[in-house]
Amino acid sequence: MTPRVTGLAAVLVVAVTLAVVSMQIGPGRASLVITNGTVVTMNAGGQIIPNGAVAIAGADIVAVGAAEDIQRRFRGAQVIDAAGQVVMPGLINTHTHAPMVLYRGLADDLALMDWLTKYIFPAEAKTVSPEFVRAGTRLAALEMIQSGTTTYADMYYFEEEIARETRAAGLRGVLGQTVIQFPVADAKTPGDALVRAEAFIKAFKGDALITPAVAPHAIYTNDESTLRASRDLSRRYGVPTLIHLAETQDEVAIARERFQASPVEYLDRLGFLGPGVLAAHGVWVTEAEAGLLRARGVGVSHNPESNMKLASGTAPVPAYLKAGVALGLGTDGAASNNDLDMFEAMRVASLLQKLQTRDPRAVSARTALAMATMGGARALGLASQIGSLEAGKRADVIVVSMSAARQTPMYDPVTHLVYTPHGDDVRTTVVNGKVLMRDRKVLTLDESVVLAEARAWAVSVRAAVGN
Amino acid sequence: MTPRVTGLAAVLVVAVTLAVVSMQIGPGRASLVITNGTVVTMNAGGQIIPNGAVAIAGADIVAVGAAEDIQRRFRGAQVIDAAGQVVMPGLINTHTHAPMVLYRGLADDLALMDWLTKYIFPAEAKTVSPEFVRAGTRLAALEMIQSGTTTYADMYYFEEEIARETRAAGLRGVLGQTVIQFPVADAKTPGDALVRAEAFIKAFKGDALITPAVAPHAIYTNDESTLRASRDLSRRYGVPTLIHLAETQDEVAIARERFQASPVEYLDRLGFLGPGVLAAHGVWVTEAEAGLLRARGVGVSHNPESNMKLASGTAPVPAYLKAGVALGLGTDGAASNNDLDMFEAMRVASLLQKLQTRDPRAVSARTALAMATMGGARALGLASQIGSLEAGKRADVIVVSMSAARQTPMYDPVTHLVYTPHGDDVRTTVVNGKVLMRDRKVLTLDESVVLAEARAWAVSVRAAVGN
Repeated sequence: MTPRVTGLAAVLVVAVTLAVVSMQIGPGRASLVITNGTVVTMNAGGQIIPNGAVAIAGADIVAVGAAEDIQRRFRGAQVIDAAGQVVMPGLINTHTHAPMVLYRGLADDLALMDWLTKYIFPAEAKTVSPEFVRAGTRLAALEMIQSGTTTYADMYYFEEEIARETRAAGLRGVLGQTVIQFPVADAKTPGDALVRAEAFIKAFKGDALITPAVAPHAIYTNDESTLRASRDLSRRYGVPTLIHLAETQDEVAIARERFQASPVEYLDRLGFLGPGVLAAHGVWVTEAEAGLLRARGVGVSHNPESNMKLASGTAPVPAYLKAGVALGLGTDGAASNNDLDMFEAMRVASLLQKLQTRDPRAVSARTALAMATMGGARALGLASQIGSLEAGKRADVIVVSMSAARQTPMYDPVTHLVYTPHGDDVRTTVVNGKVLMRDRKVLTLDESVVLAEARAWAVSVRAAVGN
Repeated sequence: MTPRVTGLAAVLVVAVTLAVVSMQIGPGRASLVITNGTVVTMNAGGQIIPNGAVAIAGADIVAVGAAEDIQRRFRGAQVIDAAGQVVMPGLINTHTHAPMVLYRGLADDLALMDWLTKYIFPAEAKTVSPEFVRAGTRLAALEMIQSGTTTYADMYYFEEEIARETRAAGLRGVLGQTVIQFPVADAKTPGDALVRAEAFIKAFKGDALITPAVAPHAIYTNDESTLRASRDLSRRYGVPTLIHLAETQDEVAIARERFQASPVEYLDRLGFLGPGVLAAHGVWVTEAEAGLLRARGVGVSHNPESNMKLASGTAPVPAYLKAGVALGLGTDGAASNNDLDMFEAMRVASLLQKLQTRDPRAVSARTALAMATMGGARALGLASQIGSLEAGKRADVIVVSMSAARQTPMYDPVTHLVYTPHGDDVRTTVVNGKVLMRDRKVLTLDESVVLAEARAWAVSVRAAVGN
């Protein structure tokens, strides 16, 4: 190296140093800094920052790193100290029917057909209304915010009401207007439901929090033309399609009898399967079909607690993971769970596969956590926006307490996040940069009012089923 | 009827009436009255009292009934208002290794042999000591009191230390001194362990809270003479025998190879099985063997979460129930769970059997609740003392909050008790008439000291496994 080049290099070093120093001297502005926690990023490298911080500006994460570094670089208008706690991406519930929280525990321990025909259908026929779904969505939103769910996928009736309440509560939602062959509260015919779905899409497309979607209920509750029309509507507007798929052996038997095909084969034959489709349950799916779903770009929502409670079966999670399917976790509606706690869903997902595969290494805590975060984001087509703590993504962040007696001591924050918390351990919930709950105080809903409304609706529900 | 007899009858009626009135006028004294709650008695009739109360005098329940009636009949030195909450018998955890809470999450998601040989055994070899088991028992007791467990069955080392800490914390325990063939921290030989067990029995027999027991670890870790000697010792003193039985397929294979018998057949051949024996796990037990266990008066502890996490298998719960076996629930040690929450154990027990039997009616919430209360009491030989809220039994009572958003609305208090609470929903825990926790404040342990001690021990544990 000649002296001349050395001199130039020295100048460059000085310039770069000055630039770094200036960045350090003049901190950037952040609307919110969450600091001093164990940051579990869920980024591609699985990075965990023992004493880390997340800087948020508006709706976006602008930096994730060591607490010392972030605090030097950013001055937060609001600062949340997460000392002794875990900071992680908000949980993504890929399958629920939010207003059904009002039927929570209405009919437990029953055979599926008794459950549906003696309780759920009669209750729905007599109680579902715009007022009912609004009250139910508020209760579900309260529960989700309190348990660290920041995005959820929904299939129900009057979905535009659900969307309004979801937005008001500050949650992110992929919300599907149900399309079903028989008359329901919000549509006398599937044609009516499609009209309603289109209006819903037009009203909410482009919303910062709400992704409208079309939700043809299932292959056994819609005929071929309704399934095709639902999928066409989704494609026309570039919105997701949500469907129950291969949930029970009964559904497989119906498909075999009516279509001489499995549920997956039947939908593939219709040209239904493709990117943007989210299949809920996927219990009775073969390894080859898991590969087909992957090839078609279909996401799957795994709902282990509902599948256990309704005795539906065990989804082939190892096959999905092996095939590389975008696999998220869900709770299903509270009538078959009986809560919306995604921590419990993670734990049960992990325990169940260990048992069924006879391998305690199956669905590790890391895998379960990935399913509830990035897996869900991929399944919902939102992987570029949510699912991990990375600069440039939306600021959907939760802070989880890990200091209860039942969580002490802690050897590994990741396995601890799956095997020890309840939803109630979530202290703070942030969606799209907005603090929805801080230190267990929900800021966007009045808890006592929401609970009182729910109890009032329960009286009507009870009357509807003659209970 | 002659006038004379009528006159006598009239006198008798007046006398009885006066006696009743006098009972009503002069209320009895009670040390504690818990009132205004939904009382789930778990008595033989499954009685639920919507607005009920429990009167306690000293260590005993003296009356259970309508709140109005109990409040008229008893004046409580202390009164707990359980309005909007459930009052029920304390939960009975029939299998754990209390001090292993200090290994909670030390080694998750590993094959059983790696888990045991690379983590648990090395950690135990280097850390188990009287000080360790005392600190671990305090942490476990804190967690149990906080989650509504009032009685637990334990198998570990230095059991006399565990007994002292359990008594100090105010919990009821059936505590088994481990007897195992290889050298362990508290005994170089099984003979040493038996000597220790006998001293332990002598020290604690007749204690109001502690039932000492002998705990030969398992058939594959003890030879025949040690198993016989352990059982003989139990019989000599009339104390329970606790043993792991038929937990894994490996154990069955070992029994077939060594003894040309199943684990149950082998123990029966030794004359080991009989009243007072509590078999933990009982996963690989045939329907015929379930009948044999019933005939011999053996109790069984079902541990669904541990069996799932370690991929051991699914216990034949319907066969046990059909045979009438005294069947309790357990969590197992926190190294394979990872907590001591009996509400979660109930929920998983119910969900798991629904799935495995493909019948959503299998192990109803009522059945799971019975397993965690009266079932456990029967399995531990304590059915006349605990397991239900009935006059004459010991006052082991918990008060459970049911008003969180995730528990709203409530249609059926019994299914709700299984499908919605976490241990943290327990507000108040009473054992033997003494309030151990009131409104989440534990009165017999200093929580911050217990947690700090546990965190200090975790440093040693981490060092022991080179982690």
